[in-house]
Amino acid sequence: MSLKFTIVKKLDGTLGRAGSIQTPHGTIETPAFITVGTKATVKSLNSDQIKEIGIQCVLANTYHLYLQPGDELVKRAGGLNKFMSWKGPTMTDSGGFQVFSLGVAFGKGITKMTKGKELLLPEARPDDEGLPKLVTIDHDGVMFRSHLDGSAHYFTPERSMEIQHNLGADIIFAFDECTSPTESIHYQSEALDRTHRWAKKSLERHLELSKQNSEQSLKGGLQAPALFGIVQGGRHENLRKESAQFLADLKVNGVGFDGFGIGGSFEKEDMGSAVRWANEILPEDKPRHLLGIGEPEDLFQGVENGVDTFDCVAPTRNGRTGTVYTVTGKKHIGNAEFIDKFAAIDPDCGCYTCKNYTCAYINHLFRGKEMLAGTLASIHNLYFVTHLVSGMRKAILEGNFVRYKEDFFNTYKRLS
Amino acid sequence: MSLKFTIVKKLDGTLGRAGSIQTPHGTIETPAFITVGTKATVKSLNSDQIKEIGIQCVLANTYHLYLQPGDELVKRAGGLNKFMSWKGPTMTDSGGFQVFSLGVAFGKGITKMTKGKELLLPEARPDDEGLPKLVTIDHDGVMFRSHLDGSAHYFTPERSMEIQHNLGADIIFAFDECTSPTESIHYQSEALDRTHRWAKKSLERHLELSKQNSEQSLKGGLQAPALFGIVQGGRHENLRKESAQFLADLKVNGVGFDGFGIGGSFEKEDMGSAVRWANEILPEDKPRHLLGIGEPEDLFQGVENGVDTFDCVAPTRNGRTGTVYTVTGKKHIGNAEFIDKFAAIDPDCGCYTCKNYTCAYINHLFRGKEMLAGTLASIHNLYFVTHLVSGMRKAILEGNFVRYKEDFFNTYKRLS
Repeated sequence: MSLKFTIVKKLDGTLGRAGSIQTPHGTIETPAFITVGTKATVKSLNSDQIKEIGIQCVLANTYHLYLQPGDELVKRAGGLNKFMSWKGPTMTDSGGFQVFSLGVAFGKGITKMTKGKELLLPEARPDDEGLPKLVTIDHDGVMFRSHLDGSAHYFTPERSMEIQHNLGADIIFAFDECTSPTESIHYQSEALDRTHRWAKKSLERHLELSKQNSEQSLKGGLQAPALFGIVQGGRHENLRKESAQFLADLKVNGVGFDGFGIGGSFEKEDMGSAVRWANEILPEDKPRHLLGIGEPEDLFQGVENGVDTFDCVAPTRNGRTGTVYTVTGKKHIGNAEFIDKFAAIDPDCGCYTCKNYTCAYINHLFRGKEMLAGTLASIHNLYFVTHLVSGMRKAILEGNFVRYKEDFFNTYKRLS
Repeated sequence: MSLKFTIVKKLDGTLGRAGSIQTPHGTIETPAFITVGTKATVKSLNSDQIKEIGIQCVLANTYHLYLQPGDELVKRAGGLNKFMSWKGPTMTDSGGFQVFSLGVAFGKGITKMTKGKELLLPEARPDDEGLPKLVTIDHDGVMFRSHLDGSAHYFTPERSMEIQHNLGADIIFAFDECTSPTESIHYQSEALDRTHRWAKKSLERHLELSKQNSEQSLKGGLQAPALFGIVQGGRHENLRKESAQFLADLKVNGVGFDGFGIGGSFEKEDMGSAVRWANEILPEDKPRHLLGIGEPEDLFQGVENGVDTFDCVAPTRNGRTGTVYTVTGKKHIGNAEFIDKFAAIDPDCGCYTCKNYTCAYINHLFRGKEMLAGTLASIHNLYFVTHLVSGMRKAILEGNFVRYKEDFFNTYKRLS
């Protein structure tokens, strides 16, 4: 058993809970925000900075690392931890998100979280015509065209498991098809069948590889990772529930998943219910990860609906483009109002950036297109989101979650 | 007196010496490599990283900071140190280098150090025709066209002093005209007259401002900086000696310069003698800074010829483009040979990068165009050059400089 999940305290009247996930590289205290390090690097930050922020776990991207430098090379380096010089817990996603991001979403500005209803109009694809060129999905897997050099790469659940075992993260994910809310229920249902078929194949191959790993482990190899199945089903209650039940029940030789991911691209108003439908069915004693979600309002909603861990590129992506989180909402630090603001982004913030630098200086760095600009803003944003979620944990433990949430939204306003 | 220079030990048979420069923000142990932070940021590094490398002093650029964010803003921030959150000694150059870089060198690939004789062919400018468009030089100063927005800015020695006093570095430089080795002796001589006239005006205005500063300082304002005059004269022995003598003798109300810079764009083979000509004349008890020089072979030559401090963008610029210093010479870390080299750039190096990351990982970061790539390579390069020069200091103190130099060049080869 490469993972142990413990619930310490539940959040009354909700699906929420505070707990801990023990992994071979340390314990993740949950709820927790997991930081994305797509190409085995949390963009612009070194390992000491990641640790100093309070980040507990880094999630890297299987598809990107497979393309470059290659999973075999990461394995030869001693696995993801050694390769990127990060001592704490790690996750890799399965490549399934790229079925979405390089597929239906490619070049269309569709993200993990869409706003409003506009994408649900009948532009939803009636059939397989017009499939985006970088991804071709079939019964057994997905053909990707590399965004780097156009080369073709066929991903199957088996292949995803082999690659992820080579990368050697503590927690890995089953290969799935991440769908868009623009899809018809007909397409969602078909995609879900694929995701479930692939979940079973992922689990089978994972257990075979784990057995091999376990033999190698005695000789000093990597320990076998924990595998999470991914719930899909879009915004449809019946599909989400069917998916959660299927994955909860799925066993191979009596062994099921170590935990669960909840995937899909959401509409803002659908996310909470989609997560709740899944978590009402998923076994309570297994950890649940909500894939690709990270805005403050969504994090609260996720925790209340029983999510233990989250990952999202938003804090670093926002940081690099000059958007910083504050207790009153997100701000564009490059704006004129910050040119001569000789105070920290948030004087009460404990991050390295706020303890050492003023808005005026960071504004100057962004205007001067200096590399340090994005680094300092990323540090602040990751600290903000990481501590927002660890604050939720503390609030659950201390029994004052509702007040913590109210206090937060009393000042925090979403950026228009 | 805002600066105190002490010689601890001389290097037998040469002009070299080990010493210390005390400034209001701490002591620089010399010889020392000063790190360039053009826009009040050592590119990609935060203050803790600068300190951890062992960097003693940061040199920022007057012209760039004048344009953005503006010297008045830096003054309002509490001066350069507070603005950039750096506690150690600082310098600012005078803007004189931009007379060169935005002038005759602009867009022509001419740098501070040219190789071979090709630039000395008769393309040297016969008269003022064809003066580059971003700089116009006259009797009293220089008209710059901003590379940011095309606006016009007239720099005089007086203006340079006012800007540098606003920026508030510990050591500032007189406004000069940095010339190219492509210039005729006729032009060099004319330019030197300007540099000397401007040196006197710089010193006069500096003393006026220092008197005002001194009054403000009692009320908590910035302490007056130390002023270095800059020796020019190109590759001509008579001009270099004339310049050194003029600046050494120059006094205003009995007060001279606190130290000296040696400026100009050099040909590789001319640098040593140009520096020696100056330092044989400059007063021994004042510190000497060689502007814009930083390759290992040039640093040794500088120290032997009596230079106390150096600055150069090379370590960070090389780092950002993937060229790293090693004891066997410079290497391109993005090259194929490093793809699977699972060892540090230099296993014996004490820098953060070498203690934590492998060549394979850094190679991956460069190929992936990741921000951390340039940061890690810059840290290593700055550590290499900083410790190469502090090693020279140690060798002078311990009496084994010749062996230190021989050992270095036994393995170090210049990149072809």
